[in-house]
Amino acid sequence: MIYPNATRRIKITLSYDGTAYHGWQVQPGLITIQKVVEAIVTHIEGKPVKVAASGRTDAGVHAMAQVAAFSMGNPIPTENLKQAMNRLLPTDIRILQAEEAPAAFHARFDAKSKIYEYRIWREEVCPPFDRLYVHHHPYPLDEPAMIAASRLFEGEHDFSAFAAADPKDALGHSKVRQIFYSVLQRRGSCLIYQVLGSGFLKHMVRNIVGTLIEVGKGNLNSEQVRKLMEQTGGRCGATSPPQGLFLVRVNYE
Amino acid sequence: MIYPNATRRIKITLSYDGTAYHGWQVQPGLITIQKVVEAIVTHIEGKPVKVAASGRTDAGVHAMAQVAAFSMGNPIPTENLKQAMNRLLPTDIRILQAEEAPAAFHARFDAKSKIYEYRIWREEVCPPFDRLYVHHHPYPLDEPAMIAASRLFEGEHDFSAFAAADPKDALGHSKVRQIFYSVLQRRGSCLIYQVLGSGFLKHMVRNIVGTLIEVGKGNLNSEQVRKLMEQTGGRCGATSPPQGLFLVRVNYE
Repeated sequence: MIYPNATRRIKITLSYDGTAYHGWQVQPGLITIQKVVEAIVTHIEGKPVKVAASGRTDAGVHAMAQVAAFSMGNPIPTENLKQAMNRLLPTDIRILQAEEAPAAFHARFDAKSKIYEYRIWREEVCPPFDRLYVHHHPYPLDEPAMIAASRLFEGEHDFSAFAAADPKDALGHSKVRQIFYSVLQRRGSCLIYQVLGSGFLKHMVRNIVGTLIEVGKGNLNSEQVRKLMEQTGGRCGATSPPQGLFLVRVNYE
Repeated sequence: MIYPNATRRIKITLSYDGTAYHGWQVQPGLITIQKVVEAIVTHIEGKPVKVAASGRTDAGVHAMAQVAAFSMGNPIPTENLKQAMNRLLPTDIRILQAEEAPAAFHARFDAKSKIYEYRIWREEVCPPFDRLYVHHHPYPLDEPAMIAASRLFEGEHDFSAFAAADPKDALGHSKVRQIFYSVLQRRGSCLIYQVLGSGFLKHMVRNIVGTLIEVGKGNLNSEQVRKLMEQTGGRCGATSPPQGLFLVRVNYE
Protein backbone atom coordinates (compact mmCIF):
# COMPACT_ATOMS: atom_id res chain seq x y z
CA MET A 1 0.00 0.00 0.00
CA ILE A 2 1.26 3.48 -0.83
CA TYR A 3 0.62 6.31 1.62
CA PRO A 4 0.64 9.66 -0.22
CA ASN A 5 2.12 11.74 2.58
CA ALA A 6 4.52 10.87 5.35
CA THR A 7 2.61 12.54 8.15
CA ARG A 8 3.82 10.73 11.27
CA ARG A 9 7.17 10.91 12.97
CA ILE A 10 8.14 7.69 14.77
CA LYS A 11 10.83 7.35 17.40
CA ILE A 12 12.16 3.83 17.93
CA THR A 13 14.41 2.52 20.67
CA LEU A 14 16.33 -0.52 19.52
CA SER A 15 18.91 -2.96 20.81
CA TYR A 16 21.38 -4.80 18.64
CA ASP A 17 24.25 -7.24 18.71
CA GLY A 18 26.75 -5.57 16.39
CA THR A 19 28.80 -8.73 15.76
CA ALA A 20 27.37 -9.49 12.33
CA TYR A 21 27.16 -5.90 11.03
CA HIS A 22 29.43 -3.29 9.52
CA GLY A 23 28.16 -0.75 12.01
CA TRP A 24 24.99 1.34 11.93
CA GLN A 25 25.45 3.43 8.83
CA VAL A 26 24.53 2.34 5.31
CA GLN A 27 27.61 1.53 3.23
CA PRO A 28 27.47 0.27 -0.35
CA GLY A 29 27.75 -3.50 -0.55
CA LEU A 30 27.92 -4.08 3.21
CA ILE A 31 25.32 -5.31 5.69
CA THR A 32 24.66 -2.57 8.23
CA ILE A 33 22.03 -2.17 10.91
CA GLN A 34 20.57 0.93 9.25
CA LYS A 35 20.23 -0.95 5.96
CA VAL A 36 18.35 -3.82 7.61
CA VAL A 37 16.06 -1.54 9.64
CA GLU A 38 15.33 0.67 6.63
CA ALA A 39 14.47 -2.38 4.53
CA ILE A 40 11.92 -3.49 7.15
CA VAL A 41 10.32 -0.04 7.54
CA THR A 42 10.30 0.41 3.77
CA HIS A 43 8.51 -2.94 3.48
CA ILE A 44 5.88 -1.89 6.04
CA GLU A 45 5.42 1.55 4.49
CA GLY A 46 5.43 0.36 0.87
CA LYS A 47 7.92 2.99 -0.25
CA PRO A 48 11.49 3.98 0.68
CA VAL A 49 11.90 5.29 4.22
CA LYS A 50 15.09 6.77 5.68
CA VAL A 51 15.85 5.88 9.30
CA ALA A 52 18.20 8.25 11.14
CA ALA A 53 19.87 7.23 14.40
CA SER A 54 21.24 9.27 17.30
CA GLY A 55 24.66 8.51 15.88
CA ARG A 56 26.64 5.86 14.09
CA THR A 57 28.04 2.88 15.93
CA ASP A 58 31.16 1.22 14.51
CA ALA A 59 31.37 -2.30 13.10
CA GLY A 60 31.08 -4.81 15.96
CA VAL A 61 29.81 -2.27 18.51
CA HIS A 62 26.57 -3.15 20.35
CA ALA A 63 23.59 -1.10 21.46
CA MET A 64 21.42 -1.75 24.49
CA ALA A 65 19.17 1.17 23.53
CA GLN A 66 19.98 3.11 20.37
CA VAL A 67 17.38 5.68 19.27
CA ALA A 68 16.34 6.33 15.69
CA ALA A 69 13.51 8.14 13.93
CA PHE A 70 11.65 8.05 10.64
CA SER A 71 8.56 9.45 8.97
CA MET A 72 5.75 7.30 7.65
CA GLY A 73 2.20 7.58 6.37
CA ASN A 74 1.05 4.10 7.43
CA PRO A 75 -1.35 4.62 10.38
CA ILE A 76 -0.38 1.34 12.13
CA PRO A 77 -0.49 1.75 15.93
CA THR A 78 2.96 1.99 17.46
CA GLU A 79 2.59 -1.22 19.48
CA ASN A 80 1.68 -3.14 16.31
CA LEU A 81 4.51 -1.45 14.42
CA LYS A 82 6.97 -2.64 17.07
CA GLN A 83 5.61 -6.18 16.87
CA ALA A 84 5.62 -6.18 13.05
CA MET A 85 9.21 -4.94 12.97
CA ASN A 86 10.33 -7.58 15.48
CA ARG A 87 8.65 -10.28 13.42
CA LEU A 88 10.50 -9.14 10.30
CA LEU A 89 13.89 -8.26 11.78
CA PRO A 90 16.64 -10.80 12.49
CA THR A 91 16.82 -11.67 16.21
CA ASP A 92 20.10 -9.79 16.68
CA ILE A 93 18.18 -6.52 16.17
CA ARG A 94 15.18 -5.89 18.45
CA ILE A 95 12.78 -2.96 18.69
CA LEU A 96 12.28 -2.21 22.38
CA GLN A 97 9.83 0.66 21.87
CA ALA A 98 8.08 2.55 19.09
CA GLU A 99 6.37 5.84 19.88
CA GLU A 100 4.89 8.90 18.21
CA ALA A 101 7.26 11.87 18.18
CA PRO A 102 6.89 15.55 17.26
CA ALA A 103 7.16 16.15 13.50
CA ALA A 104 10.51 17.87 13.96
CA PHE A 105 12.04 15.16 16.16
CA HIS A 106 15.59 14.35 15.13
CA ALA A 107 17.32 11.47 16.91
CA ARG A 108 20.77 13.02 16.52
CA PHE A 109 20.29 16.78 16.90
CA ASP A 110 17.80 16.47 19.76
CA ALA A 111 19.97 14.10 21.81
CA LYS A 112 21.19 15.82 24.98
CA SER A 113 23.61 13.17 26.16
CA LYS A 114 24.61 9.54 25.75
CA ILE A 115 25.90 6.77 27.97
CA TYR A 116 28.41 4.23 26.74
CA GLU A 117 29.84 1.20 28.54
CA TYR A 118 33.02 -0.71 27.76
CA ARG A 119 33.82 -4.14 29.23
CA ILE A 120 37.31 -5.57 29.67
CA TRP A 121 37.48 -9.23 30.72
CA ARG A 122 40.42 -9.70 33.10
CA GLU A 123 40.58 -13.45 33.72
CA GLU A 124 42.94 -15.80 31.90
CA VAL A 125 40.10 -17.59 30.10
CA CYS A 126 37.22 -15.72 28.48
CA PRO A 127 33.92 -17.66 28.77
CA PRO A 128 32.56 -18.61 25.33
CA PHE A 129 29.26 -16.86 26.15
CA ASP A 130 30.97 -13.50 26.73
CA ARG A 131 33.48 -13.61 23.91
CA LEU A 132 31.50 -11.31 21.60
CA TYR A 133 30.68 -8.79 24.35
CA VAL A 134 33.99 -8.06 26.06
CA HIS A 135 37.54 -7.13 25.20
CA HIS A 136 39.64 -9.97 26.63
CA HIS A 137 42.75 -8.53 28.24
CA PRO A 138 44.19 -11.08 30.70
CA TYR A 139 47.62 -9.44 30.96
CA PRO A 140 48.91 -7.45 33.97
CA LEU A 141 47.49 -3.92 34.31
CA ASP A 142 47.87 -1.33 37.06
CA GLU A 143 44.13 -1.15 37.67
CA PRO A 144 44.23 1.46 40.47
CA ALA A 145 46.15 3.79 38.12
CA MET A 146 43.57 3.21 35.37
CA ILE A 147 40.68 3.78 37.77
CA ALA A 148 42.24 7.06 38.93
CA ALA A 149 42.98 8.19 35.36
CA SER A 150 39.43 7.46 34.20
CA ARG A 151 38.20 10.56 36.07
CA LEU A 152 40.57 12.86 34.16
CA PHE A 153 38.21 12.86 31.18
CA GLU A 154 35.39 14.50 33.14
CA GLY A 155 34.61 18.13 32.30
CA GLU A 156 34.92 20.06 29.05
CA HIS A 157 37.90 19.07 26.94
CA ASP A 158 39.15 19.17 23.39
CA PHE A 159 39.09 15.52 22.37
CA SER A 160 40.91 15.96 19.04
CA ALA A 161 43.59 13.53 20.17
CA PHE A 162 40.88 10.93 20.81
CA ALA A 163 39.01 11.27 17.51
CA ALA A 164 39.51 9.12 14.46
CA ALA A 165 39.80 11.04 11.20
CA ASP A 166 36.23 11.30 10.01
CA PRO A 167 35.59 12.43 6.42
CA LYS A 168 32.03 13.40 7.43
CA ASP A 169 33.31 15.98 9.90
CA ALA A 170 33.70 19.38 8.25
CA LEU A 171 37.11 20.91 8.86
CA GLY A 172 37.06 23.33 11.74
CA HIS A 173 34.18 21.59 13.52
CA SER A 174 34.72 21.77 17.24
CA LYS A 175 36.15 18.67 18.92
CA VAL A 176 35.24 20.01 22.35
CA ARG A 177 32.90 17.74 24.27
CA GLN A 178 31.43 17.82 27.76
CA ILE A 179 31.88 14.65 29.82
CA PHE A 180 29.57 14.48 32.85
CA TYR A 181 31.04 11.33 34.26
CA SER A 182 33.81 8.96 33.26
CA VAL A 183 34.31 6.08 35.67
CA LEU A 184 36.25 2.84 35.47
CA GLN A 185 35.39 0.20 38.07
CA ARG A 186 36.30 -3.39 38.80
CA ARG A 187 33.17 -5.56 38.85
CA GLY A 188 33.76 -9.31 39.24
CA SER A 189 35.98 -10.51 36.41
CA CYS A 190 35.53 -7.27 34.44
CA LEU A 191 36.80 -3.76 34.33
CA ILE A 192 33.72 -1.73 33.40
CA TYR A 193 34.10 1.76 31.97
CA GLN A 194 31.00 3.98 31.93
CA VAL A 195 30.87 7.41 30.41
CA LEU A 196 28.08 10.00 30.12
CA GLY A 197 28.76 12.83 27.71
CA SER A 198 27.11 15.53 25.62
CA GLY A 199 28.38 13.83 22.51
CA PHE A 200 31.17 11.64 21.27
CA LEU A 201 33.57 11.82 18.34
CA LYS A 202 34.31 8.84 16.09
CA HIS A 203 36.17 6.13 18.09
CA MET A 204 36.29 8.46 21.12
CA VAL A 205 35.19 5.93 23.76
CA ARG A 206 37.40 3.20 22.30
CA ASN A 207 40.32 5.66 22.24
CA ILE A 208 39.72 6.68 25.87
CA VAL A 209 39.68 3.00 26.87
CA GLY A 210 42.77 2.31 24.76
CA THR A 211 44.48 5.18 26.56
CA LEU A 212 43.44 3.84 29.97
CA ILE A 213 44.95 0.48 29.02
CA GLU A 214 48.19 2.27 28.12
CA VAL A 215 48.06 3.82 31.60
CA GLY A 216 47.53 0.33 33.04
CA LYS A 217 50.59 -0.93 31.17
CA GLY A 218 52.68 1.93 32.52
CA ASN A 219 53.18 3.48 29.07
CA LEU A 220 51.33 6.69 29.96
CA ASN A 221 50.87 8.57 33.22
CA SER A 222 48.14 10.95 34.36
CA GLU A 223 50.15 14.00 33.36
CA GLN A 224 50.50 12.72 29.80
CA VAL A 225 46.79 11.90 29.61
CA ARG A 226 45.97 15.41 30.79
CA LYS A 227 48.26 16.84 28.09
CA LEU A 228 46.50 14.81 25.39
CA MET A 229 43.32 16.70 26.25
CA GLU A 230 45.01 20.09 25.90
CA GLN A 231 46.44 19.67 22.46
CA THR A 232 44.74 19.44 19.11
CA GLY A 233 47.64 17.98 17.16
CA GLY A 234 48.46 14.86 19.21
CA ARG A 235 47.14 11.35 19.03
CA CYS A 236 46.18 9.04 21.85
CA GLY A 237 47.91 5.70 22.09
CA ALA A 238 45.50 3.02 21.02
CA THR A 239 41.96 2.19 19.94
CA SER A 240 40.46 -0.67 21.94
CA PRO A 241 38.54 -3.31 19.94
CA PRO A 242 34.85 -2.73 19.16
CA GLN A 243 33.18 -5.78 20.72
CA GLY A 244 33.59 -4.52 24.31
CA LEU A 245 31.57 -1.36 23.58
CA PHE A 246 27.84 -0.82 24.20
CA LEU A 247 25.74 2.26 23.53
CA VAL A 248 23.68 2.11 26.72
CA ARG A 249 21.25 5.03 26.45
CA VAL A 250 20.47 8.22 24.56
CA ASN A 251 18.95 10.98 26.67
CA TYR A 252 16.53 13.57 25.30
CA GLU A 253 14.80 16.46 27.05
CA MET B 1 56.90 -35.49 17.43
CA ILE B 2 55.65 -39.03 17.95
CA TYR B 3 55.39 -40.40 21.50
CA PRO B 4 55.66 -44.18 21.43
CA ASN B 5 53.32 -44.86 24.33
CA ALA B 6 50.29 -43.01 25.61
CA THR B 7 51.25 -43.06 29.26
CA ARG B 8 49.31 -40.14 30.73
CA ARG B 9 45.61 -39.75 31.31
CA ILE B 10 44.40 -36.15 31.08
CA LYS B 11 41.11 -34.85 32.41
CA ILE B 12 39.92 -31.58 30.87
CA THR B 13 37.08 -29.33 31.96
CA LEU B 14 35.78 -27.28 29.06
CA SER B 15 33.13 -24.71 28.32
CA TYR B 16 31.50 -24.22 24.94
CA ASP B 17 28.90 -22.24 23.10
CA GLY B 18 27.03 -24.94 21.19
CA THR B 19 25.48 -22.56 18.64
CA ALA B 20 27.86 -23.34 15.80
CA TYR B 21 28.17 -27.10 16.40
CA HIS B 22 26.24 -30.27 15.67
CA GLY B 23 26.60 -31.31 19.29
CA TRP B 24 29.51 -32.98 21.06
CA GLN B 25 29.78 -36.27 19.27
CA VAL B 26 31.74 -36.84 16.06
CA GLN B 27 29.43 -37.28 13.07
CA PRO B 28 30.66 -37.78 9.51
CA GLY B 29 30.71 -34.54 7.54
CA LEU B 30 29.53 -32.33 10.41
CA ILE B 31 31.41 -29.94 12.68
CA THR B 32 31.14 -31.16 16.26
CA ILE B 33 32.88 -30.13 19.44
CA GLN B 34 34.52 -33.53 19.87
CA LYS B 35 35.90 -33.32 16.32
CA VAL B 36 37.44 -29.90 16.92
CA VAL B 37 38.90 -30.84 20.33
CA GLU B 38 40.29 -34.13 18.99
CA ALA B 39 41.93 -32.31 16.07
CA ILE B 40 43.70 -29.94 18.49
CA VAL B 41 44.89 -32.72 20.84
CA THR B 42 45.94 -34.82 17.87
CA HIS B 43 47.96 -31.85 16.61
CA ILE B 44 49.70 -31.44 19.97
CA GLU B 45 50.34 -35.18 20.36
CA GLY B 46 51.44 -35.76 16.77
CA LYS B 47 49.17 -38.77 16.31
CA PRO B 48 45.43 -39.49 16.54
CA VAL B 49 43.93 -39.07 20.02
CA LYS B 50 40.37 -39.94 21.04
CA VAL B 51 38.68 -37.56 23.48
CA ALA B 52 35.75 -39.00 25.44
CA ALA B 53 33.29 -36.73 27.27
CA SER B 54 31.03 -37.35 30.25
CA GLY B 55 28.21 -37.52 27.76
CA ARG B 56 26.98 -36.13 24.48
CA THR B 57 25.35 -32.75 24.28
CA ASP B 58 22.87 -32.13 21.44
CA ALA B 59 23.32 -29.65 18.60
CA GLY B 60 22.96 -26.12 19.95
CA VAL B 61 23.28 -27.12 23.62
CA HIS B 62 25.91 -25.29 25.68
CA ALA B 63 28.32 -26.39 28.40
CA MET B 64 29.58 -24.30 31.28
CA ALA B 65 31.80 -27.16 32.42
CA GLN B 66 31.79 -30.38 30.40
CA VAL B 67 34.42 -32.97 31.38
CA ALA B 68 36.38 -35.11 28.93
CA ALA B 69 39.45 -37.32 29.07
CA PHE B 70 42.16 -38.58 26.78
CA SER B 71 45.51 -40.38 26.88
CA MET B 72 48.72 -38.88 25.58
CA GLY B 73 52.46 -39.45 25.63
CA ASN B 74 53.50 -35.80 25.25
CA PRO B 75 54.92 -34.76 28.65
CA ILE B 76 53.74 -31.13 28.35
CA PRO B 77 52.76 -29.76 31.80
CA THR B 78 48.98 -29.53 32.23
CA GLU B 79 49.00 -25.71 32.57
CA ASN B 80 50.90 -25.39 29.27
CA LEU B 81 48.59 -27.94 27.65
CA LYS B 82 45.59 -25.86 28.68
CA GLN B 83 47.18 -22.72 27.26
CA ALA B 84 48.24 -24.43 24.04
CA MET B 85 44.74 -25.83 23.52
CA ASN B 86 43.14 -22.42 24.13
CA ARG B 87 45.52 -20.83 21.64
CA LEU B 88 44.56 -23.40 18.99
CA LEU B 89 40.82 -23.74 19.70
CA PRO B 90 38.17 -21.35 18.37
CA THR B 91 37.01 -18.91 21.07
CA ASP B 92 33.61 -20.61 21.40
CA ILE B 93 35.37 -23.60 23.00
CA ARG B 94 37.54 -22.91 26.05
CA ILE B 95 39.58 -25.25 28.25
CA LEU B 96 38.97 -24.20 31.87
CA GLN B 97 41.25 -26.79 33.42
CA ALA B 98 43.59 -29.63 32.42
CA GLU B 99 44.78 -32.07 35.06
CA GLU B 100 46.45 -35.43 35.45
CA ALA B 101 44.00 -38.26 36.11
CA PRO B 102 44.36 -41.93 37.10
CA ALA B 103 45.12 -44.18 34.13
CA ALA B 104 41.65 -45.73 34.35
CA PHE B 105 39.75 -42.42 34.57
CA HIS B 106 36.69 -42.44 32.33
CA ALA B 107 34.73 -39.20 32.03
CA ARG B 108 31.43 -40.99 31.45
CA PHE B 109 31.56 -44.13 33.59
CA ASP B 110 33.14 -42.37 36.57
CA ALA B 111 30.64 -39.50 36.62
CA LYS B 112 28.46 -39.66 39.74
CA SER B 113 26.00 -36.94 38.83
CA LYS B 114 25.40 -33.97 36.57
CA ILE B 115 23.73 -30.59 36.81
CA TYR B 116 21.85 -29.06 33.91
CA GLU B 117 20.19 -25.66 33.65
CA TYR B 118 17.49 -24.54 31.23
CA ARG B 119 16.54 -20.88 30.71
CA ILE B 120 13.18 -19.64 29.45
CA TRP B 121 12.98 -15.92 28.63
CA ARG B 122 9.53 -14.64 29.60
CA GLU B 123 9.46 -11.02 28.37
CA GLU B 124 7.89 -9.94 25.10
CA VAL B 125 11.23 -8.97 23.56
CA CYS B 126 14.32 -11.17 23.86
CA PRO B 127 17.51 -9.08 24.17
CA PRO B 128 19.84 -9.70 21.21
CA PHE B 129 22.65 -10.64 23.62
CA ASP B 130 20.62 -13.48 25.15
CA ARG B 131 19.03 -14.85 22.00
CA LEU B 132 21.42 -17.80 21.65
CA TYR B 133 21.26 -18.74 25.34
CA VAL B 134 17.55 -18.86 26.19
CA HIS B 135 14.32 -20.31 24.90
CA HIS B 136 12.11 -17.28 24.21
CA HIS B 137 8.57 -18.05 25.36
CA PRO B 138 6.69 -14.76 25.88
CA TYR B 139 3.21 -16.34 25.88
CA PRO B 140 1.01 -16.85 28.96
CA LEU B 141 2.02 -19.70 31.25
CA ASP B 142 0.71 -20.79 34.64
CA GLU B 143 4.10 -20.43 36.28
CA PRO B 144 3.04 -21.49 39.81
CA ALA B 145 1.69 -24.76 38.35
CA MET B 146 4.98 -25.31 36.47
CA ILE B 147 7.02 -24.54 39.58
CA ALA B 148 4.99 -27.02 41.61
CA ALA B 149 5.20 -29.69 38.89
CA SER B 150 8.97 -29.33 38.58
CA ARG B 151 9.41 -31.14 41.92
CA LEU B 152 7.53 -34.22 40.67
CA PHE B 153 10.63 -35.41 38.82
CA GLU B 154 12.65 -35.79 42.01
CA GLY B 155 13.38 -39.32 43.18
CA GLU B 156 13.88 -42.54 41.24
CA HIS B 157 11.71 -42.85 38.16
CA ASP B 158 11.50 -44.64 34.84
CA PHE B 159 12.09 -41.84 32.34
CA SER B 160 11.26 -43.88 29.21
CA ALA B 161 8.55 -41.38 28.30
CA PHE B 162 11.14 -38.58 28.44
CA ALA B 163 13.84 -40.25 26.33
CA ALA B 164 14.36 -39.77 22.62
CA ALA B 165 14.86 -42.96 20.68
CA ASP B 166 18.60 -43.50 20.79
CA PRO B 167 20.14 -46.09 18.44
CA LYS B 168 23.19 -46.25 20.73
CA ASP B 169 21.09 -47.51 23.62
CA ALA B 170 20.95 -51.30 23.68
CA LEU B 171 17.40 -52.63 23.93
CA GLY B 172 16.48 -53.44 27.48
CA HIS B 173 18.85 -50.89 29.00
CA SER B 174 17.28 -49.40 32.08
CA LYS B 175 15.66 -46.01 31.69
CA VAL B 176 15.47 -45.57 35.45
CA ARG B 177 17.33 -42.52 36.70
CA GLN B 178 17.74 -40.90 40.09
CA ILE B 179 16.95 -37.19 40.27
CA PHE B 180 18.31 -35.51 43.41
CA TYR B 181 16.73 -32.15 42.75
CA SER B 182 14.51 -30.69 40.06
CA VAL B 183 13.57 -27.08 40.64
CA LEU B 184 11.98 -24.41 38.46
CA GLN B 185 12.27 -20.83 39.70
CA ARG B 186 11.44 -17.37 38.43
CA ARG B 187 14.58 -15.21 38.37
CA GLY B 188 14.15 -11.75 36.84
CA SER B 189 12.88 -12.12 33.29
CA CYS B 190 13.66 -15.85 33.21
CA LEU B 191 12.24 -19.11 34.36
CA ILE B 192 15.30 -21.11 35.35
CA TYR B 193 15.11 -24.89 35.62
CA GLN B 194 17.92 -26.66 37.45
CA VAL B 195 18.24 -30.40 37.76
CA LEU B 196 20.81 -32.64 39.47
CA GLY B 197 20.65 -36.31 38.54
CA SER B 198 22.63 -39.53 38.47
CA GLY B 199 22.41 -39.54 34.71
CA PHE B 200 20.24 -38.34 31.87
CA LEU B 201 18.74 -39.99 28.81
CA LYS B 202 18.89 -38.42 25.35
CA HIS B 203 16.73 -35.25 25.29
CA MET B 204 15.60 -35.93 28.87
CA VAL B 205 16.08 -32.42 30.25
CA ARG B 206 14.55 -30.80 27.16
CA ASN B 207 11.62 -33.22 27.40
CA ILE B 208 11.10 -32.42 31.10
CA VAL B 209 11.11 -28.71 30.29
CA GLY B 210 8.79 -29.25 27.32
CA THR B 211 6.45 -31.12 29.67
CA LEU B 212 6.59 -28.30 32.23
CA ILE B 213 5.65 -25.85 29.48
CA GLU B 214 2.68 -28.09 28.63
CA VAL B 215 1.71 -27.87 32.31
CA GLY B 216 2.05 -24.07 32.09
CA LYS B 217 -0.27 -24.01 29.07
CA GLY B 218 -2.83 -26.09 30.93
CA ASN B 219 -2.45 -29.07 28.58
CA LEU B 220 -1.15 -31.39 31.30
CA ASN B 221 -1.76 -31.57 35.04
CA SER B 222 0.37 -32.96 37.85
CA GLU B 223 -1.49 -36.28 37.80
CA GLN B 224 -0.74 -36.76 34.12
CA VAL B 225 2.92 -35.87 34.64
CA ARG B 226 3.14 -38.40 37.46
CA LYS B 227 1.61 -41.05 35.19
CA LEU B 228 4.19 -40.35 32.47
CA MET B 229 6.86 -41.43 34.95
CA GLU B 230 5.11 -44.71 35.70
CA GLN B 231 4.75 -45.99 32.18
CA THR B 232 7.35 -47.20 29.73
CA GLY B 233 5.25 -46.98 26.58
CA GLY B 234 4.06 -43.35 26.69
CA ARG B 235 5.63 -40.21 25.32
CA CYS B 236 5.88 -36.81 26.95
CA GLY B 237 4.40 -33.87 25.11
CA ALA B 238 7.19 -31.78 23.69
CA THR B 239 10.94 -31.28 23.42
CA SER B 240 12.02 -27.74 24.24
CA PRO B 241 14.60 -26.16 21.91
CA PRO B 242 18.31 -26.78 22.54
CA GLN B 243 19.67 -23.24 22.93
CA GLY B 244 18.18 -22.76 26.43
CA LEU B 245 20.10 -25.76 27.82
CA PHE B 246 23.46 -25.70 29.64
CA LEU B 247 25.44 -28.59 31.06
CA VAL B 248 26.51 -26.87 34.28
CA ARG B 249 28.71 -29.41 36.05
CA VAL B 250 29.78 -33.04 36.14
CA ASN B 251 30.46 -34.43 39.59
CA TYR B 252 32.98 -37.19 40.29
CA GLU B 253 33.98 -38.85 43.57
